[in-house]
Amino acid sequence: MAVLCKPAIAVPEYVITNEETLELARRLHGDHPQINLALRLIENTGVQKRHLIQPIDKVLRHPGFDARSAVYDAQSKARVPAVVRQALDQAELEPQQIDLIVYVSCTGFMMPPMTSWLINKMGFRQETRQLPIAQLGCAAGGAAVNRAHDFCQAYPDANALIIACEFCSLCYQPTDLDVGSLLSNGLFGDGIAAAVVRGSGGTGMQLERNGSYLIPDTEDWISYAVRSTGFHFQLDKRVPGTMEPLAPVLCALADEHQWNASKMDFYVIHAGGPRILDDLSYFLDVPSEAFRFSRATLTEYGNIASAVVLDALSRMFDEASALDGHRGLMAGFGPGITAEMSLGTWVSGSEAEG
Amino acid sequence: MAVLCKPAIAVPEYVITNEETLELARRLHGDHPQINLALRLIENTGVQKRHLIQPIDKVLRHPGFDARSAVYDAQSKARVPAVVRQALDQAELEPQQIDLIVYVSCTGFMMPPMTSWLINKMGFRQETRQLPIAQLGCAAGGAAVNRAHDFCQAYPDANALIIACEFCSLCYQPTDLDVGSLLSNGLFGDGIAAAVVRGSGGTGMQLERNGSYLIPDTEDWISYAVRSTGFHFQLDKRVPGTMEPLAPVLCALADEHQWNASKMDFYVIHAGGPRILDDLSYFLDVPSEAFRFSRATLTEYGNIASAVVLDALSRMFDEASALDGHRGLMAGFGPGITAEMSLGTWVSGSEAEG
Repeated sequence: MAVLCKPAIAVPEYVITNEETLELARRLHGDHPQINLALRLIENTGVQKRHLIQPIDKVLRHPGFDARSAVYDAQSKARVPAVVRQALDQAELEPQQIDLIVYVSCTGFMMPPMTSWLINKMGFRQETRQLPIAQLGCAAGGAAVNRAHDFCQAYPDANALIIACEFCSLCYQPTDLDVGSLLSNGLFGDGIAAAVVRGSGGTGMQLERNGSYLIPDTEDWISYAVRSTGFHFQLDKRVPGTMEPLAPVLCALADEHQWNASKMDFYVIHAGGPRILDDLSYFLDVPSEAFRFSRATLTEYGNIASAVVLDALSRMFDEASALDGHRGLMAGFGPGITAEMSLGTWVSGSEAEG
Repeated sequence: MAVLCKPAIAVPEYVITNEETLELARRLHGDHPQINLALRLIENTGVQKRHLIQPIDKVLRHPGFDARSAVYDAQSKARVPAVVRQALDQAELEPQQIDLIVYVSCTGFMMPPMTSWLINKMGFRQETRQLPIAQLGCAAGGAAVNRAHDFCQAYPDANALIIACEFCSLCYQPTDLDVGSLLSNGLFGDGIAAAVVRGSGGTGMQLERNGSYLIPDTEDWISYAVRSTGFHFQLDKRVPGTMEPLAPVLCALADEHQWNASKMDFYVIHAGGPRILDDLSYFLDVPSEAFRFSRATLTEYGNIASAVVLDALSRMFDEASALDGHRGLMAGFGPGITAEMSLGTWVSGSEAEG
């Protein structure tokens, strides 16, 4: 069965602390009628620092969508291969053994997709399937895991590589001044994650069941306006309240598997913001501590979009607390409002088996 | 086994003939140093007419990327549901019976994707998996069929809906004056296609094996420049020559299936342009007549990108010449340069079986 192996993670070298973010918000938006609300929301994110692909003064100057697209292209090509290499090493596989590459990223757009460039540059087989997904936002991390799982379900000998590359700072829009935008400017960070889903063998989360759920009529709660200045992220204030309707959905998926979503041994949850984690802990009736991996991602990197779930899972590997047979739940949330959920069991296999 | 049922097709109401296109090219680019080459290339496409979502004078005036994105949003929402409804009817399924929606489109970008809107508006289950693909260009039609096939392979009781919505006229860029752009302006058309892949039952192409292939180091042969004016399509003059390296790839896939790519009973080929069809016929050593469905698509609609393969398949259904057990090959080509290929057998099942 398919096993999601240890993710590799990279965050870029330019760091901004939450204090610096708050100071910046005060300086840039001191006369904003809702500045105090925005500052309070940013303080409450629990983010301590974020990592950016460029120094903050460059991030703040929008050079136009042409230039931003060029930066995305150059930065992803400069930064993704090392993360992929590490993910392959951790799964003890070579590029030639990968049958599908799922590349998810909502913060830059390329055609052909990065998958083509990676195949050419990193020695993947020309027959490798390419699945680029740009339109699922933060839910795409979960979707990548789930589509890779489906693929290995269809072809049990296959291995899939998933990559989440998010440069949220390239979507900073200086002219967007609503409170949702000011909060987003203090919440999102840049990061890259990659992981292999092995068809057999491997140590990690053995994927057993996945599901998707769209909350009815919430399409405009998280969305992009696609404009000449690029992607404009639009965040509705109702988003933090979405765990109340989604907790029963997670429970229903676990029920189908004869599991109990409130009694899992581990949780890997998209840390969209602090209230997502607080509310889900409340509505699932699990201790806040159960989401410690996700909270650490949020604290140290901010919301790195589709890369969050892989980063949180990587922290769980580092803690080395999972035991064979432990049951876990992974969930990503994003535009739609869509939840991409997965259930799996911890296994520590011999990589050589595969 | 998964069966690709009869596609539904819609082309919009504004028609431009090839004579009108040539006249327009002469009028707009009379002083272009390579106008005669461009006119000859457009004449040689074999396109007789194309269908557009807006009158040609509106197409020619670029209103900015903001406005174009709004047009894509409105037009896709206005036009896609009826095509989806027809595809479901032709497969004798209701929206509630669909487990996965694959939506492919490279000519407009939305987040959340159209899949979310369709689920909300057309009565699909909230649990329906969403797979939007924007970055595979013309190859995405084949990719959609293949990923739907994979999904039904993983979950044999599942049904998938695939949708290709291409408004190529929204990527017209009046400032792009290279010969490749002038040719593209005379080649691409607008169109929408949808089809159901039934996990069991159904009449159509039973999907048995699929494959993907990336021609090494051809990433920049078909590409988008992503700019403040939107997507700029960039076509290299080497593209029409790609069937020479791809014909052996089609043969190899057929060989794996103990079939002979030169002796199939039917072919559903992406009609990127006339030379694609001519060359593939030559290199596969099959009569030109074998590609009559694709050629009819090109003649009547132009290159409608990812929708071509579904339109060609629809014409094959209309001809009603396929017999049970007939073996067929489907292939889409697009940026990468990527080929998405599929092998299948014609079956006429009772829809009630599923």
